[in-house]
Amino acid sequence: MSEKPALELFDNPRPGRNYVITIRCPEFTSVCPKTGQPDFGTITIEYTPDKSCIELKSLKLYMQSYRNKGVFYERLANEILDDLVEASKPVWMKIVSQFTPRGGITTDVTVQYRAEK
Amino acid sequence: MSEKPALELFDNPRPGRNYVITIRCPEFTSVCPKTGQPDFGTITIEYTPDKSCIELKSLKLYMQSYRNKGVFYERLANEILDDLVEASKPVWMKIVSQFTPRGGITTDVTVQYRAEK
Amino acid sequence: MSEKPALELFDNPRPGRNYVITIRCPEFTSVCPKTGQPDFGTITIEYTPDKSCIELKSLKLYMQSYRNKGVFYERLANEILDDLVEASKPVWMKIVSQFTPRGGITTDVTVQYRAEK
Amino acid sequence: MSEKPALELFDNPRPGRNYVITIRCPEFTSVCPKTGQPDFGTITIEYTPDKSCIELKSLKLYMQSYRNKGVFYERLANEILDDLVEASKPVWMKIVSQFTPRGGITTDVTVQYRAEK
Amino acid sequence: MSEKPALELFDNPRPGRNYVITIRCPEFTSVCPKTGQPDFGTITIEYTPDKSCIELKSLKLYMQSYRNKGVFYERLANEILDDLVEASKPVWMKIVSQFTPRGGITTDVTVQYRAEK
Amino acid sequence: MSEKPALELFDNPRPGRNYVITIRCPEFTSVCPKTGQPDFGTITIEYTPDKSCIELKSLKLYMQSYRNKGVFYERLANEILDDLVEASKPVWMKIVSQFTPRGGITTDVTVQYRAEK
Amino acid sequence: MSEKPALELFDNPRPGRNYVITIRCPEFTSVCPKTGQPDFGTITIEYTPDKSCIELKSLKLYMQSYRNKGVFYERLANEILDDLVEASKPVWMKIVSQFTPRGGITTDVTVQYRAEK
Amino acid sequence: MSEKPALELFDNPRPGRNYVITIRCPEFTSVCPKTGQPDFGTITIEYTPDKSCIELKSLKLYMQSYRNKGVFYERLANEILDDLVEASKPVWMKIVSQFTPRGGITTDVTVQYRAEK
Amino acid sequence: MSEKPALELFDNPRPGRNYVITIRCPEFTSVCPKTGQPDFGTITIEYTPDKSCIELKSLKLYMQSYRNKGVFYERLANEILDDLVEASKPVWMKIVSQFTPRGGITTDVTVQYRAEK
Amino acid sequence: MSEKPALELFDNPRPGRNYVITIRCPEFTSVCPKTGQPDFGTITIEYTPDKSCIELKSLKLYMQSYRNKGVFYERLANEILDDLVEASKPVWMKIVSQFTPRGGITTDVTVQYRAEK
Repeated sequence: MSEKPALELFDNPRPGRNYVITIRCPEFTSVCPKTGQPDFGTITIEYTPDKSCIELKSLKLYMQSYRNKGVFYERLANEILDDLVEASKPVWMKIVSQFTPRGGITTDVTVQYRAEK
Repeated sequence: MSEKPALELFDNPRPGRNYVITIRCPEFTSVCPKTGQPDFGTITIEYTPDKSCIELKSLKLYMQSYRNKGVFYERLANEILDDLVEASKPVWMKIVSQFTPRGGITTDVTVQYRAEK
Repeated sequence: MSEKPALELFDNPRPGRNYVITIRCPEFTSVCPKTGQPDFGTITIEYTPDKSCIELKSLKLYMQSYRNKGVFYERLANEILDDLVEASKPVWMKIVSQFTPRGGITTDVTVQYRAEK
Repeated sequence: MSEKPALELFDNPRPGRNYVITIRCPEFTSVCPKTGQPDFGTITIEYTPDKSCIELKSLKLYMQSYRNKGVFYERLANEILDDLVEASKPVWMKIVSQFTPRGGITTDVTVQYRAEK
Repeated sequence: MSEKPALELFDNPRPGRNYVITIRCPEFTSVCPKTGQPDFGTITIEYTPDKSCIELKSLKLYMQSYRNKGVFYERLANEILDDLVEASKPVWMKIVSQFTPRGGITTDVTVQYRAEK
Repeated sequence: MSEKPALELFDNPRPGRNYVITIRCPEFTSVCPKTGQPDFGTITIEYTPDKSCIELKSLKLYMQSYRNKGVFYERLANEILDDLVEASKPVWMKIVSQFTPRGGITTDVTVQYRAEK
Repeated sequence: MSEKPALELFDNPRPGRNYVITIRCPEFTSVCPKTGQPDFGTITIEYTPDKSCIELKSLKLYMQSYRNKGVFYERLANEILDDLVEASKPVWMKIVSQFTPRGGITTDVTVQYRAEK
Repeated sequence: MSEKPALELFDNPRPGRNYVITIRCPEFTSVCPKTGQPDFGTITIEYTPDKSCIELKSLKLYMQSYRNKGVFYERLANEILDDLVEASKPVWMKIVSQFTPRGGITTDVTVQYRAEK
Repeated sequence: MSEKPALELFDNPRPGRNYVITIRCPEFTSVCPKTGQPDFGTITIEYTPDKSCIELKSLKLYMQSYRNKGVFYERLANEILDDLVEASKPVWMKIVSQFTPRGGITTDVTVQYRAEK
Repeated sequence: MSEKPALELFDNPRPGRNYVITIRCPEFTSVCPKTGQPDFGTITIEYTPDKSCIELKSLKLYMQSYRNKGVFYERLANEILDDLVEASKPVWMKIVSQFTPRGGITTDVTVQYRAEK
C-alpha cells in the first residue's frame, strides 16, 4: 500500500472524553476491477478518537488515491477501516460505503472496529 | 427450482469480521399468480457473510428469473431468504420485499435468518 | 358487526418462522359520528402470522365497509385490531390509524396485541 | 342532477378586478361505475369571479355528493366544470382532477372555460 | 388558571389495553411575554389513556386560549402537561413544543409524565 | 381602517431600475368571521417599487393587526393589496394568500395591481 | 405489430371542448435489444381527445405487451405515439418516456403529434 | 468602495455565443445596519458574458467582504449588480438575494441588467 | 475566554422534573484557523436543566462571538460544551456541530456531558 | 482532441419528426486545471436529432475521457457542445453542466446550438 498518501494526525483536543466525529465524503470514485468502469459513491466515517484525530486534508488525499484504482465494494470498506484504524488507533470506528446503482442494484457495506481494553 | 440461475459466490475478504452488506434491487418484477398481472417492487437484502459473499451479477440474474413467474408476496420473501441462505450460508440475513400499491394497498414482508452456533 | 365482510385467510407459507407482514391502506375513509362529515386517513397493519395470513382482497373489502359508518378515531383502531386478531389469530399485531387534520389538529392511534404463550 | 346540493354564492368583494381564486379538495372520493370500487383523488378549481364567488361550505357539500356515485374520470372533471360555471358564471375557470393509481396507472383531466365577451 | 376552557373527557373505549394516542396541533400561537410579539409553533401530545380520553374539540379550545397570552417556551410545555395530566389522569403522557425561529434560533421542549403505581 | 398600524416607507435605493422585491409572511393569522375560529396562512407580497420601499418592521406590525380581526379569505388579499398600493404607490404589486385546510379544503387568492402610465 | 393487444376506445364525453387527459404509467418495463437485460421506466401520455378517448384497461394491456420485447429507447416513444394516434385520432398527443439509469446515464424521449386541420 | 477586493476576469472561452453562467453563493452573510445583528442568505448570479467571465475565487473574496458590513437587503442586490456589471461588462446579468427569516418574514430581491446595443 | 459574552440564566420553571430542551442554531459561522476562510454550520444543543435554564438572547450573542474567531471543528463542539456546562450546570447536555462541505467533505462532532451524582 | 473516444451514431428512427432526447450524466468528474483537485457534477444533454442519434455507450466513454483531464467549468460545456454538434449534426442541442460546491459556491453553465436553415 506504498502508493497511498500518508494519513496525518493531530492531538485529540479532549482526550478522555467519549465523543464522536462523523466525516462524510460524498465524492468518492474508484474503478470496477472487472469492467474498468468508474464507480461513484459516498464514504462515511464515524469514530471516537483516543490520542489522535485524523487531519481532514490528508484524509481527502487518501480518498482521492482510489480514483484510478480497481477495488471491489466488499473489500473497499474493510480496507479503509484497516488503514484508518492502523493510522489513528481510535477507541471505536465505523465505515459505511454506499454506491450508485449498477445494473439497477445498489450495494452498501458497513464495517466496525472497537479497540480491545 | 431447477430453472433458477445459480447464485455465484466469492471469498469473504475479511472472514471473522462481523460486518453488514446491504443490497437494494428496486427493479424487481414478478407476476400475480391469481390475475396474471405484473407486480413491481423493491427487494432489499442485508447480511453478514461467513465464508462467502454473493456475487452481484449472478444475484441480478437470480432476481430477473422471477420476471415471468407467478408468486404471492408472502411466499416470495421467504423463498428468496431460503435460496440465498442455502447458497451463501451467512452468519445472518434479512430480506425485505416492498411492492407498489394494488387496489390502493401496499404490502411489505420482512424475513430474517440467523445461523445457529 | 354482522354487516362487515368476512376476512378470508390462507395458510402461512412458513409457519414457525418469526417474520413480519406490513400492510398500508392509505385510502381509508369513514364518517364522523358527531357531524356526519367524512374523515380520511391511513390504516397501517403490522403482524407476525401464526397459522394463517390475511388475504388482501377480503381485507380491502373489510376496510371499505367503514366508508359510510360513523366511528370515533380512538375506537376505530381498537375495533380493527379486535376484528383482525379474532379472524387471523396472529403471534403479534399492531394497528396505526392516522387521519388528515380536522380543525387544524391531527390524531393518530397506535394499538398492539401479543398472543399469550 | 336534482340530488346534488345547491352551490351557494356571495358577492365578489372586488368586482371588475381580474384576480384568481384557487381551491384544492384533496379528499375527493367517488365510485368506479364499472367495478363499484372507490376512487380517491384531488380536485383543484381555479377561477376569476365575475359578479359572484362560490361559498366554500356549499362547495364542500357538492364535492361530498359524489361519495357514493359512479362516474368515469374523463366525465367527472367536465361535469364539475359545467355545474360550477352554470352556478357562478365566472370570467374564467379551470378544473383539474388527479386520481391515485389503479392498476399501476394514474389519470389526470384538465378542463377550462372562458366566458365569451 | 380560571380563564382556560375546561378540557372535556370521554370514556376510554378499551380500558386496560396499553395503547397510544398522538395529537398534533401545528397551528399553535402565543405571545412572547418580553416583546409582546407573536410566537408560532407545533404542540404534539402523546398519551396512554387510563379511564378517560381527551375530547378533541375542547382540546382545540384549550390550545386557542393561549392565543393572546404571554408565556415562555420552557414554561409552556410544562404547563400544558400539568393541565392535561390533572384533567385526564393518563397512564403516561409526553408533550413536545416546537417553535419557528426567532433571531435565527429554534427551541423545542420535551416533557414527560408517568403515573405512579 | 383607523386601527391599522401605519405602513412606513423609505426611499427606493435605485429609483428608475425595474426590479422586484418579494416578501413572505408565513406566520399570518386572522379569525373566521362566521365561526370565530382562527385561520392560519402565508401572505406573499411581490412588487416593483417606484419612489418608495415598504419598511419591513411596520409591515410586520400591519400583518399582526389582523391577528384578532374577522375577515374572509377572498376579501383579505384584496384589502392588503389596496392598503399597500395606497401607502407605497408601486409600479406593480401582487399579493398571494394561502391558507391551511379547513374542512379538508385549501383556498389561495392571487391579486395584482399595475400603475397606469 | 399483430401481437399487440387492441386499444379500445369510448366516446369523448364532451366532444368539441379542448381539454387534456394525462395518463402516467410508472411501471413500464421492456428489454434491451442489445443485451437482453430488462429496462424500467415511466411512460407519460398527454392528449386532447377528438371523437374518442382511450380506455384505460386496454391501454394497460398494450403497455404490458412490451414486457418481453426488445426495443431501443429512441424508437419506443415514437412507436407508442404512432400506435395511439392511429387508434384514437386525437387533436393533439405527447408521449414522454423516462428510463432508470444504465451505466450511470438516464435517457428521456419526448415526442408530439398535432392533427392537421 | 475602495475596501472591496478587486473582481478578476478571464477571457470568455466562446465570445459571440449567447450562453448563461449561473453562480450560487449559499453562504452569504452581512450585518443589519440598524440592529448590528448578522443576516444570512443566498446570492445567485446569472449572466451572459461578453468579452470576460468573472473569476470565481475573486468573486468569493468579494462576497466575503460583506461579512462585517452593514447593508439593507434592498440596497445589497442593487450594489452587487452595479459592481459586477462595472467589472465584467456582461451582455445580461441578474442578481437574486434571498435571506433567512427575521421576525418571521423573509425578503428576496431580484435585479436585472441588459447592455444597450 | 474573557472576550465571550456572559451566558445569562433564569430559574428552571419545573426543577426536579426530568425534561429536555433542544436549541438549534442553523446560522453559526466561524473562521478556519488555517486558511482564514469562513466556515458555516449548525450547532444543536440538547440539555436537561437542573436549577437553571440558558437565556436564549445571551446564547445567541455567545454564538455570534465566534463569527470572526478561528477554531477547528473538533475543538469547537468541546469548547461550547465546556462553556455551557460551566455556566448552567445541567443534569445532562449534548452538543452537535454540523458544517457545510469543504473540499467536498462534511464533518460533524457530537459531544456529551452527564453530571455525576 | 485526438485522445477522445469517437462518438458513435445510429439512424434517427423517425427522421423529419421534431422530437427531443434528454440524456442526464450525473456521474461526471474532471480535474481542476489550477489545483489538480477533482471536480464532480452532472452534465445534461437535450437535442432534436436530424439524421443521426448519439449512441449511449460511446457517449458514456466520451464523458469518461474527462476523468483525468483539467478543464475549467466555463470551457467544458462549450467544448462538449462543439464536439457533440460536430459529430451528430442535430437540429438543436442544449448542454447544461452543474457542479458540486467548491469554496461554498456552485456554478452551472448552459449553452445552446441551433442549426441554420
